[in-house]
Amino acid sequence: MNVYSTVSDSLENVDDYLDTGRRKMEWAAANMPILSFLREQFIREKPFQGECIGVALHVEAKTAVLLELLVEGGAKVAVTSCNPLSTHDDVSFVLDSNPMISSYAKKGITDEEYYKGIEAVISHEPTLTLDDGGDLIFALHKNHKEKIKNVIGGCEETTTGVHRLKSMEIEGGLKYPVFAVNDTPMKRLFDNIHGTGESAILSIAITTNFSWAGKTVVVAGYGYCGRGVAKKLSGQNARVIITEVDSLRALEAYMEGYEVMPMIQAAHRGDVFITTTGNCDILNRNHFELMRDGVILANAGHFNVEINIKELEKFATSERMVKDGIQEYQLGDGRRINVLASGRLVNLATPLSLGHPIEIMDQSFGMQAVCMRELVVNPTYAPGLHSVPIELDTQVAEIKLRSEGIEIDYLSETQESYLKGWEFGT
Amino acid sequence: MNVYSTVSDSLENVDDYLDTGRRKMEWAAANMPILSFLREQFIREKPFQGECIGVALHVEAKTAVLLELLVEGGAKVAVTSCNPLSTHDDVSFVLDSNPMISSYAKKGITDEEYYKGIEAVISHEPTLTLDDGGDLIFALHKNHKEKIKNVIGGCEETTTGVHRLKSMEIEGGLKYPVFAVNDTPMKRLFDNIHGTGESAILSIAITTNFSWAGKTVVVAGYGYCGRGVAKKLSGQNARVIITEVDSLRALEAYMEGYEVMPMIQAAHRGDVFITTTGNCDILNRNHFELMRDGVILANAGHFNVEINIKELEKFATSERMVKDGIQEYQLGDGRRINVLASGRLVNLATPLSLGHPIEIMDQSFGMQAVCMRELVVNPTYAPGLHSVPIELDTQVAEIKLRSEGIEIDYLSETQESYLKGWEFGT
Amino acid sequence: MNVYSTVSDSLENVDDYLDTGRRKMEWAAANMPILSFLREQFIREKPFQGECIGVALHVEAKTAVLLELLVEGGAKVAVTSCNPLSTHDDVSFVLDSNPMISSYAKKGITDEEYYKGIEAVISHEPTLTLDDGGDLIFALHKNHKEKIKNVIGGCEETTTGVHRLKSMEIEGGLKYPVFAVNDTPMKRLFDNIHGTGESAILSIAITTNFSWAGKTVVVAGYGYCGRGVAKKLSGQNARVIITEVDSLRALEAYMEGYEVMPMIQAAHRGDVFITTTGNCDILNRNHFELMRDGVILANAGHFNVEINIKELEKFATSERMVKDGIQEYQLGDGRRINVLASGRLVNLATPLSLGHPIEIMDQSFGMQAVCMRELVVNPTYAPGLHSVPIELDTQVAEIKLRSEGIEIDYLSETQESYLKGWEFGT
Amino acid sequence: MNVYSTVSDSLENVDDYLDTGRRKMEWAAANMPILSFLREQFIREKPFQGECIGVALHVEAKTAVLLELLVEGGAKVAVTSCNPLSTHDDVSFVLDSNPMISSYAKKGITDEEYYKGIEAVISHEPTLTLDDGGDLIFALHKNHKEKIKNVIGGCEETTTGVHRLKSMEIEGGLKYPVFAVNDTPMKRLFDNIHGTGESAILSIAITTNFSWAGKTVVVAGYGYCGRGVAKKLSGQNARVIITEVDSLRALEAYMEGYEVMPMIQAAHRGDVFITTTGNCDILNRNHFELMRDGVILANAGHFNVEINIKELEKFATSERMVKDGIQEYQLGDGRRINVLASGRLVNLATPLSLGHPIEIMDQSFGMQAVCMRELVVNPTYAPGLHSVPIELDTQVAEIKLRSEGIEIDYLSETQESYLKGWEFGT
Repeated sequence: MNVYSTVSDSLENVDDYLDTGRRKMEWAAANMPILSFLREQFIREKPFQGECIGVALHVEAKTAVLLELLVEGGAKVAVTSCNPLSTHDDVSFVLDSNPMISSYAKKGITDEEYYKGIEAVISHEPTLTLDDGGDLIFALHKNHKEKIKNVIGGCEETTTGVHRLKSMEIEGGLKYPVFAVNDTPMKRLFDNIHGTGESAILSIAITTNFSWAGKTVVVAGYGYCGRGVAKKLSGQNARVIITEVDSLRALEAYMEGYEVMPMIQAAHRGDVFITTTGNCDILNRNHFELMRDGVILANAGHFNVEINIKELEKFATSERMVKDGIQEYQLGDGRRINVLASGRLVNLATPLSLGHPIEIMDQSFGMQAVCMRELVVNPTYAPGLHSVPIELDTQVAEIKLRSEGIEIDYLSETQESYLKGWEFGT
Repeated sequence: MNVYSTVSDSLENVDDYLDTGRRKMEWAAANMPILSFLREQFIREKPFQGECIGVALHVEAKTAVLLELLVEGGAKVAVTSCNPLSTHDDVSFVLDSNPMISSYAKKGITDEEYYKGIEAVISHEPTLTLDDGGDLIFALHKNHKEKIKNVIGGCEETTTGVHRLKSMEIEGGLKYPVFAVNDTPMKRLFDNIHGTGESAILSIAITTNFSWAGKTVVVAGYGYCGRGVAKKLSGQNARVIITEVDSLRALEAYMEGYEVMPMIQAAHRGDVFITTTGNCDILNRNHFELMRDGVILANAGHFNVEINIKELEKFATSERMVKDGIQEYQLGDGRRINVLASGRLVNLATPLSLGHPIEIMDQSFGMQAVCMRELVVNPTYAPGLHSVPIELDTQVAEIKLRSEGIEIDYLSETQESYLKGWEFGT
Repeated sequence: MNVYSTVSDSLENVDDYLDTGRRKMEWAAANMPILSFLREQFIREKPFQGECIGVALHVEAKTAVLLELLVEGGAKVAVTSCNPLSTHDDVSFVLDSNPMISSYAKKGITDEEYYKGIEAVISHEPTLTLDDGGDLIFALHKNHKEKIKNVIGGCEETTTGVHRLKSMEIEGGLKYPVFAVNDTPMKRLFDNIHGTGESAILSIAITTNFSWAGKTVVVAGYGYCGRGVAKKLSGQNARVIITEVDSLRALEAYMEGYEVMPMIQAAHRGDVFITTTGNCDILNRNHFELMRDGVILANAGHFNVEINIKELEKFATSERMVKDGIQEYQLGDGRRINVLASGRLVNLATPLSLGHPIEIMDQSFGMQAVCMRELVVNPTYAPGLHSVPIELDTQVAEIKLRSEGIEIDYLSETQESYLKGWEFGT
Repeated sequence: MNVYSTVSDSLENVDDYLDTGRRKMEWAAANMPILSFLREQFIREKPFQGECIGVALHVEAKTAVLLELLVEGGAKVAVTSCNPLSTHDDVSFVLDSNPMISSYAKKGITDEEYYKGIEAVISHEPTLTLDDGGDLIFALHKNHKEKIKNVIGGCEETTTGVHRLKSMEIEGGLKYPVFAVNDTPMKRLFDNIHGTGESAILSIAITTNFSWAGKTVVVAGYGYCGRGVAKKLSGQNARVIITEVDSLRALEAYMEGYEVMPMIQAAHRGDVFITTTGNCDILNRNHFELMRDGVILANAGHFNVEINIKELEKFATSERMVKDGIQEYQLGDGRRINVLASGRLVNLATPLSLGHPIEIMDQSFGMQAVCMRELVVNPTYAPGLHSVPIELDTQVAEIKLRSEGIEIDYLSETQESYLKGWEFGT
């Protein structure tokens, strides 16, 4: 039993606890056709026989289905959370009850405990790593250089993690091959756009009990997550304002029909603000000063740096938990600013959040599974950050389409030869 | 203390209970600008001085804000729930702690207890009634004919209630004036379309953890609720199929871009089915036989008659609660059919449901408040069902626009006289 | 030959002319399944035997299909245009070549000629009238009171016409029964929303060669036409601002996600302005003063009174036809204001305009045809403005659905009796 | 005077002709702020002094504004059309009247004349080439190898051209540097999506007078053009079905909410078919056999190979021009199939087509202008196909945003250093 001892200690009825966790996982598994399809292959092929996979992901039902799949593919797994608030303890408990899995994930831990979880995973001597945000890879490189030689490779799930890995690679710091799974079309066209989009606005609505119809919402950042959030908001009849630092993305947003302006101009316009930039200090005192009474601030980016909570705490005269998941900051002039989930990832860290939809994670985790297999089956990748071969995307897309009963067209011979030619005219 | 004794009996810590209820109401009140505006008027005018208002509504925070407003207008209030699953007990408790309010609403009650709640309200000798579904009015007319002479009038909140009142009126059974508040533009253009639309798809998503993107959803009925649901689903990238019995509505749906077909054809197409018809037996064994494995059935209509649960129970070989709020029916051939909230109103009766968004209820309850005032201030309406004078809608719309800081245009003299003329040519 | 003699006189090759007109009508007829269906009935029933139908409509191919249908139903027809710019002369010529039809419609006529056309129709002693804007009815009532006694009834096609008839009725001026065909669901849910919406933005785009993506468009009026225009604009990625004088409509627009403000605030925001109010003086000098250089002004309302062209002419230092259908007004400060189609109905009066789409007019004219039949078959309507019985809408909707191969559901006995009942509970 | 002599010969009134062409160009120029901005730079810098630019583009007003800009940058220009139907003769005439420009473009030419135009351009010894489809580059490489050494570089505008250049490069056939301008974000995120999307559906609607509301439209291909067309169709309330050969794109379409299926299944479903694949034989006899009576076929891809017209001609029993721009093929069983613009690029080749919107071409041609300048200012690119440096996109995007008065955010120092770091934790 390696889950922080308090998890099991505090349990009065272990069976009930295991039961709720298992039902969550069962529901997820029943709705993840890609992982189901891969399960049959993995059981037959056992690609991870002899490997230990170190994992730092959001530990909840869908992740658990992935981890059990890896185990069915022959792996031992050591897992911790990549976020102090996103763990479902019952699911963590079920995972830990699997003899091939050691789970260190727990909800509501301190920063210190968080890093102890990372260290605990590393103590299992992983030969493969699976990260969401990069904390496991960074800890390995910083504190355990001697263990890196045993690592075949890794996968990174999120925009922020890939960004950090790029910075690391530029400085020559990345010592084993890592797939930028986040950057695959199968991940970011679906997970970032539909997954983040739907789950962010769902989490905000269930936490506030607000309607989107009639709201003015400022979305900071028009990357894949930002455009997902903006698109889904429009689909619920909100007025959307986009802020950006990149001219091209700003122009895309503008031509899509959104209003585009600097945050300092948007600050007094918004009823709700959602940050999706992956950068820090997006909402700070300059903006707090201009906001309307009762605004909602939420972050849909990986780290809790986008809303400058420290400045808000200084600026406010008092604060209280006004509703589960909503911290209200009272300002000197009577205005109130409401922050969701302490500025942490809103679709995971609010009390009722479930993270991304199941089918979306089926796609993302389908990519993770085939990427992990690629690393062991085809161990030719040099140290550094790698794009995932497009064939792996196609493979997973085909599994998904088949599971939905969707057929598509195929190129005829005439068409294939037409595509190869270039000597035809008008 | 009139809340069913068990509510208070089971409480270990009354203060905590009152506190959570009060915070819910505070959050709601802070986001209901129309009711806030009316509060000032009502406190000044005391229109309900000497009246007792009998209420059967969904008892949760937003309703509580309305009821406190009526009390501030001078009324005594006796309230029970209009649905066995929709009550928030902490809110009911707070209401009951107000000396001017007696609350009989409790969550998870039996049918027998439900009707006892209605009777308890009637025992307060209401002079005005406020209904959602019509059960209070019907009980008065059926079991307490002698009390009807004291009733000045009533208001009805929902499509189903208005429909029942019309049937009643045709049979000569309606003995006091009732406003069809449901049919006002201010109610049904907002509450039915945006309110039901947003909250229904929110409740289904939070209960299932499914994505709407990529789903095929069959919406039964293209009335105001149905078109709200369909519109919001499209806005989340679902494929929507509409079923209808009315040619004109079917054609509207078709021209809007939806697929339209009979349910028997749609049955094998849908991933999710949402009923919004106000009629019974919309999904029955004929359809269950054709549905895909793992489909979700949810009802967004007032009563739990749209999905024929009894036929499903007979048809199934076993059932279990597969996830909170989801009953899974296992069929003989291995297929599973999942029913949300036992076929009750999905946006109120699933475990995490919050009902309609706050701002939407601010509009609907703003209409209720001014309609109740109209009944006492202008007691000239004959017995029977009445349309609400359009001026009341305009009044509430103006309050809302003002609260949002929105100005609009006014007719110039030239324009007014142009509109009166008809002798101009091309 | 009653078409203004110049039509035939100026023709060098009558056969070519008839041929282009006939091909236009053939194309329209092939795509009007409702009129095709009614044709079989009308030929069999001959409802208009002995009647003369006086018509003032936009005379182009789709209208011609309706008029030929009426003739096949036994009628004589005398027709003129309801707009000086909307006639297709070749079609008018073909109509006039039918021995049962006299056509006085011609494009580009003066106001004086316009009214001569109306008078010419009246000289045929119509027993039924078919109007778009009401000019024919008004001329009959004003100048030919003695002929009114022969008129069985009439139909009015447009919002503006119905508005004028209402004013007329209030003053006791309407002396025979007229159906407000415009107000039928089958007309205004489709013709005003989809028809005006699509054809207005099409006409503006083809005239300007502008993109809607990235444009800020101010739509004046949020009635059926206005919301059609706004909806279709959003669907092309324009930013839409709504101006209104009605609080309820303004709130609807606001909750739909549009910006709402007075025109004086919108004047400097818009790239394009589209009026749909049915009122005069919507855009006047107050607004011209604030507009950006190069703005486009277009009117999608019936009469050319919405943009105050006279004030613009006074305000401008010079003007020229900068592109076919676009009048450019040069202001003293160097700014330019571009007006489409001289402020006349933009979807009919720009050089390349085709009016409403064929299928949309099939629905509107299907309603006209069954309404005309109702007037003669069931001649019990009192003088005054009448709502069209909903059964006629249903009839036409059913024909349309059948022609599209769409089946819908029917109420079962259980459902019918459920709908009649009101004594059930929750 | 090098325009095919018939152009000038057939003119009765040269001045009128020049005047209409000039007004078209003036209107375009007034609405192309990016080219206006660059004009000032080009006049000052004269980057093309001494160069001759050979051009094969669609010759109409917007292109003319680009060509005059190049001339103001010091170039001589020789231009012909890249499509036999897309030339506006009046504009071609105005261009040819510029002493620095020789125009060989003419509308409605034969294939032989088309290639003579290409040869005529090459006879001017171009040092830079500007292509749309690649025909000029191919002719140079095939028939004029000796002239290639004088060519500094070229730009290619379209997906099809880039595809052909890739095939050519693989075979080692591309002998000078060419920028794949089509593949730049500034081109394909706007021109392909918004430009093709809006102009294709506009051209079909103005040619057919059909409504999109209620139509089922099959879009072949879900590349940038296909998704533009699909998106704009949905925005006009059409039902969209997507066909694809690529799993990933098919899945994207599916998750966006479209139906996805093979063409053979879609063939009997569609009212309208729009091809956007860049491949041949997308609609062939297999599909014609299944289509409904009266369907519309249109091509929005570069070449007229997507609809197999030859097979349709064989399959049909007769054909006729049923309406300007619409060829009707009568089949043996009575069904009719209507083909727009003979299967050529529908947004350019139908009688009333204006090509892409002005503002969209301002962006695309802005990219062309800065890419041409880059080739001469920075002549370091090796022979072969080159991606355009992203800085050029950013440059043009900034010009556009500035011209619209849109400001955006800038990274603070804190933010820049945050983005460089990777050692932070959760």
